[in-house]
Amino acid sequence: MSEYKLTYFNFAGIGEPIRFILSYMGKEFQDIRISHQEWARQLKKESPFGKVPYLEIDGKVLHQTFAILRYLAPEAGLAGKNAEEDLEIDMIVGAYADLVTELQRYWKTQNPDEKEKLRETIINETIPFYMSKFETVLKKNGGYLANGKLSWAELYVVGHSGTIPSAIGFDLNEKYPFWKELTEKVHSLPGIKEWLKK
Amino acid sequence: MSEYKLTYFNFAGIGEPIRFILSYMGKEFQDIRISHQEWARQLKKESPFGKVPYLEIDGKVLHQTFAILRYLAPEAGLAGKNAEEDLEIDMIVGAYADLVTELQRYWKTQNPDEKEKLRETIINETIPFYMSKFETVLKKNGGYLANGKLSWAELYVVGHSGTIPSAIGFDLNEKYPFWKELTEKVHSLPGIKEWLKK
Repeated sequence: MSEYKLTYFNFAGIGEPIRFILSYMGKEFQDIRISHQEWARQLKKESPFGKVPYLEIDGKVLHQTFAILRYLAPEAGLAGKNAEEDLEIDMIVGAYADLVTELQRYWKTQNPDEKEKLRETIINETIPFYMSKFETVLKKNGGYLANGKLSWAELYVVGHSGTIPSAIGFDLNEKYPFWKELTEKVHSLPGIKEWLKK
Repeated sequence: MSEYKLTYFNFAGIGEPIRFILSYMGKEFQDIRISHQEWARQLKKESPFGKVPYLEIDGKVLHQTFAILRYLAPEAGLAGKNAEEDLEIDMIVGAYADLVTELQRYWKTQNPDEKEKLRETIINETIPFYMSKFETVLKKNGGYLANGKLSWAELYVVGHSGTIPSAIGFDLNEKYPFWKELTEKVHSLPGIKEWLKK
């Protein structure tokens, strides 16, 4: 049996989707949660490209959330069944990743005026824009993000979006009932449900 | 014969890797280059998720650079031969994409002091850090980024990095001979060589 060891910070972010997929697969994994101090002091320089999360599988270090999710997806039964289906998954996760990039830009902006302006733009324009697109996609796909069925796309977006309230003071689940439904669907998946209880 | 129609701005950026792969595949394609005005006025709202590039193949709209490249890669002979090889490609392109995100953050920052500070950090810390990592990877892989052979990873990083000089006033090829070598390798590939002459 392979040994899994995930290293990330002590929040959801882009590490949670990996926790989700491993839980869904029924894998035991070491869930190492580091502080920003530990990261800056020592771990950053030891990491593959200066970023978390990374996942060690029997000592081999995998980095980059998408690379890891895509690699685990076939064994999890969460990949597309052909290139066309994988394309649909890749497009939708890429779109959500653009939203993540905007949020990260907000977190990293130092100047208070620029930061506040950015926060307003994200809450009043960016999020509503994406949510309207996602709602359309979900309707078209019977409540899923791609190909009318569960894939790693749902684990990624729901895993990450748990971070948004603490990051920018805005809860997608409160404002968008269709997002809440998607969240609850993922949170009640076998493995993930049990993991969230811990 | 399929019809390909690429929509992007009139520079390299994250559109150039798609121009590269289509050229490498010997595909004729409409290379539609829009102005930022056209984009803001009309095209953004018609686009799949408010982003360029997007590629129409016989009318079907594909968006997200990575999704597109990954979808075209098998036909181009530039995908991995199995999941392990695809993982290596995904990890290295993801790492380069983190650098792209930092550059985009610089371009988007408005506050002059913050922007200048960010420029200095990128040029003095971020780029040297990534270049040292990439140099190691290239050495390990016989001059390639993954699996010791050409893949869509090279087309992505070289295609994009042509933008860096105009974006932040720093030319990787001048400062890093190994990067120049990689650039020249991709620029002399069949299809790409001819396309660059146009």
